[in-house]
Amino acid sequence: MAPETAAKAAPWPRNAWYVACTPDEIADKPLGRRICGERMVFHRGKAGQVVALEDFCPHRGAPLSLGFVRDGELVCGYHGLTMGCEGRATAMPGQRVAGFPAIRSFPVLERYGFVWVWPGEAELADPAKLHPLPWAESPDWAYGGGLYHIACDYRLMVDNLMDLTHETYVHAGSIGQKEIDEAPVTTRLDGDEVVTSRFMEKISAPPFWRMALRGAGLPEDAVVDRWQICRFSLPSHVMIEVGVALEGHGGHAAPPDKKAASVVVDFITPETETSHWYFWGMARSFAVADAALTDTIREGQGKIFSEDLEMLEQQQQNLLRHPDRRLLKLNIDAGGVRSRMLIDKAIAAEQALGAAPVPAQA
Amino acid sequence: MAPETAAKAAPWPRNAWYVACTPDEIADKPLGRRICGERMVFHRGKAGQVVALEDFCPHRGAPLSLGFVRDGELVCGYHGLTMGCEGRATAMPGQRVAGFPAIRSFPVLERYGFVWVWPGEAELADPAKLHPLPWAESPDWAYGGGLYHIACDYRLMVDNLMDLTHETYVHAGSIGQKEIDEAPVTTRLDGDEVVTSRFMEKISAPPFWRMALRGAGLPEDAVVDRWQICRFSLPSHVMIEVGVALEGHGGHAAPPDKKAASVVVDFITPETETSHWYFWGMARSFAVADAALTDTIREGQGKIFSEDLEMLEQQQQNLLRHPDRRLLKLNIDAGGVRSRMLIDKAIAAEQALGAAPVPAQA
Amino acid sequence: MAPETAAKAAPWPRNAWYVACTPDEIADKPLGRRICGERMVFHRGKAGQVVALEDFCPHRGAPLSLGFVRDGELVCGYHGLTMGCEGRATAMPGQRVAGFPAIRSFPVLERYGFVWVWPGEAELADPAKLHPLPWAESPDWAYGGGLYHIACDYRLMVDNLMDLTHETYVHAGSIGQKEIDEAPVTTRLDGDEVVTSRFMEKISAPPFWRMALRGAGLPEDAVVDRWQICRFSLPSHVMIEVGVALEGHGGHAAPPDKKAASVVVDFITPETETSHWYFWGMARSFAVADAALTDTIREGQGKIFSEDLEMLEQQQQNLLRHPDRRLLKLNIDAGGVRSRMLIDKAIAAEQALGAAPVPAQA
Repeated sequence: MAPETAAKAAPWPRNAWYVACTPDEIADKPLGRRICGERMVFHRGKAGQVVALEDFCPHRGAPLSLGFVRDGELVCGYHGLTMGCEGRATAMPGQRVAGFPAIRSFPVLERYGFVWVWPGEAELADPAKLHPLPWAESPDWAYGGGLYHIACDYRLMVDNLMDLTHETYVHAGSIGQKEIDEAPVTTRLDGDEVVTSRFMEKISAPPFWRMALRGAGLPEDAVVDRWQICRFSLPSHVMIEVGVALEGHGGHAAPPDKKAASVVVDFITPETETSHWYFWGMARSFAVADAALTDTIREGQGKIFSEDLEMLEQQQQNLLRHPDRRLLKLNIDAGGVRSRMLIDKAIAAEQALGAAPVPAQA
Repeated sequence: MAPETAAKAAPWPRNAWYVACTPDEIADKPLGRRICGERMVFHRGKAGQVVALEDFCPHRGAPLSLGFVRDGELVCGYHGLTMGCEGRATAMPGQRVAGFPAIRSFPVLERYGFVWVWPGEAELADPAKLHPLPWAESPDWAYGGGLYHIACDYRLMVDNLMDLTHETYVHAGSIGQKEIDEAPVTTRLDGDEVVTSRFMEKISAPPFWRMALRGAGLPEDAVVDRWQICRFSLPSHVMIEVGVALEGHGGHAAPPDKKAASVVVDFITPETETSHWYFWGMARSFAVADAALTDTIREGQGKIFSEDLEMLEQQQQNLLRHPDRRLLKLNIDAGGVRSRMLIDKAIAAEQALGAAPVPAQA
Repeated sequence: MAPETAAKAAPWPRNAWYVACTPDEIADKPLGRRICGERMVFHRGKAGQVVALEDFCPHRGAPLSLGFVRDGELVCGYHGLTMGCEGRATAMPGQRVAGFPAIRSFPVLERYGFVWVWPGEAELADPAKLHPLPWAESPDWAYGGGLYHIACDYRLMVDNLMDLTHETYVHAGSIGQKEIDEAPVTTRLDGDEVVTSRFMEKISAPPFWRMALRGAGLPEDAVVDRWQICRFSLPSHVMIEVGVALEGHGGHAAPPDKKAASVVVDFITPETETSHWYFWGMARSFAVADAALTDTIREGQGKIFSEDLEMLEQQQQNLLRHPDRRLLKLNIDAGGVRSRMLIDKAIAAEQALGAAPVPAQA
């Protein structure tokens, strides 16, 4: 009963918390989603807790995600097997289910407005390893975001987000500007994070940030200082502090009433080796009660991030056609390169521990 | 000149009559259809007889099904080769065709409102082996039906039809009802048929049967006795006697004016190892002159059967991902399990007879 | 850095001029196109010359065709690498590019209203080997055409065009007529060309030629003599002299005012082993100033040629399913058969010369 694709060579750490979905996705019915190669089904149990199981009915192999939830348990939509939240059948009309084989259940957490799943060994799952998101629990911040399915290796998205020079080219009409290219970029390791940052002084804000300045009650045509501080952490999170401040007030360190400051939030969850789920969003610390502004920002950000899709998917196709070609690793690529080093190190550590595919709990 | 996919391991008997199409499908032009792995083209010859040939012009390999019929012979739509009904070219502009290689011709029968084809050895084709359908030639019965293409192993459809507990879940809004789950099911071998049956007494009719009761001139809200008697016969036919009778009149054995009785007709023709043609319909012995009722039933049945499609196709995908996982064989699965035993036995018998892929007649 | 698919066994000559695109396709932005298995990007350099490069940015593998042209150089749309017209990076914001690996550049020519590319060894590319098209540079001729992408081996299209008996069947409503079948066909080698021709005397013109007669100022219902002279030349060009003349004036040799004479122009550029780019058109020597007639003919011809698509693509599928089946080679097939002999000979000659895949210029 080996998992479908979690072969040794999978290019992601298995023992980590990944964002699986948002609560609204399981509000009405079960959700089937493939994560790190595993087909999973998500629903809420009787106590409201989120449950993640293998999406496979042990009776005849139907996907449980085509069924429904009754009293907090999944009922298979084919012949009515009722699956308990631990992956053991609890009932089936006219049957004794005690001897039915179990299916895998995956450790799951709900926090910060997301559902997180641990695709690897259940006994290693530790809530303390969850990436902290203090802004998500603070009344001083507002958040809006969305989800894209992208047909490329999740690490190409990490590269993308850890090298924002692409904004000048891919997002020329919104957040790109010539000064990004011209500002020097520095990359360093800060604890378990790779941090790559860039500061631009005395510039005029590009369209997206003009909108944000207006939202923050500041003059959109002011001369500003702009910053981008990208932080990668395992398994595949990229938090980017971004913003503009009225010039001469300290930029990133300017007082709240002189800046529009945000965190671009990126959770990049592998689906297969050449596809991923991209949970994107923006957390901001200005005008947090302005729900209309949240919508405007979400719409603008969604449009901007959609501009990356074709490039990333075509890049993936080109790389598949040229598996042996070595790519350049320039200074601007250092953020992605060092992030991949952390990923590779985590995978190697799992393999050293003999983290073979987990047998089912049966 | 070996057939495309009829390798030894094909999971269907080759020497059997399968439903290929209905007469309306060849009324206007030739029909190309893949059956048991073989690409075939069907048309009517000069005498009105149905002809089944390999869908491959021996000149340049064009599909003959893209051509047209002239004087009962197929004319290739590319360069005009005329193909005789036995698979030998009879003419081509400016050419002598006597030496042209032949293509396969398949034994074919037209009866009971269907065209039947024998994909295996022509010399074994015996009209007497055709499954008898007495209702199809009786004035006391009316029939309506349709055709679906389904992307799953034809045996998953046999399983589906030989275990009607799925009605409670898949067809909750039409023919499903809780009492199906609760009624005991019995499965037995009756001659060459697998028979699995279930009887429900003193119940209220679900929506589809309310409609049928109305059509039969009976009160739709009456308390009824309901029956389901599924009969599998080789190669892959499932006839299901279904109906409801006013309670206490003998159920299945009740007199005609006390019941609405039908036969669900299922001809399941393999296309490839993971797809099939599903000819479904209903023959009824009440209100047989009511053509509007035939249409209403066909529409209702078509909608009901379409509800199985996603489940079956997703089940197939799950099984392809987990080829080594053993499924459960519960008492409710006995109908499908025993039907598959008949299928396996027939395939083994063909192999024992050395039923290797048939060479073309050239 | 071996080319993607140009393995030894590729079924096309590599050292030849193929039509790559028409100038309008690179008027506004770079064009990505796969030719003879190679992914190429086309644009105009600063002097207006056409440039063909490998469609792969050496920085991170993005397709250069997703970028833009600035001062005659391609700028990668991902991170702004500027690629010189010889395949060496010339600039990138904040980077020294001197050590960047080069990408392949392909010899390219613009002439006769087409862009031509040489997918093989650059040092063998010789403008003198370009197929001459005198009508394309003559004021006495007018030309209109189009482009189709067709999912079949380019040689099936050569076969198609070198055997016009298919017109009777595939194009029954426009240029087909019974007399094509009935007229004898002769095939011969004329220098480096395969020529297959057919003459029909005292016939009535089919619909397309009635339209052409009207366009030429001649009576559309006149009795005419019709000719078809197909000329294949390497690598995969088919020029077909076609026309109708008022009867008794010499047919093909009739004076200009007694005939409607054209050249069907076919450039057949392999994309992969089972797909090609089909540049079709018609050059005519009558009513050359009548632009509306050019449009009418283009529209008619486009419709006619679209009728071949399904047949060719389905033929390809049938042949892929039956790789070992030998096709017939009738007299009507001689044009295609002999054209393929020239192709095979050219491929063999390249292999004898050790024409291994070209290394990149790095």
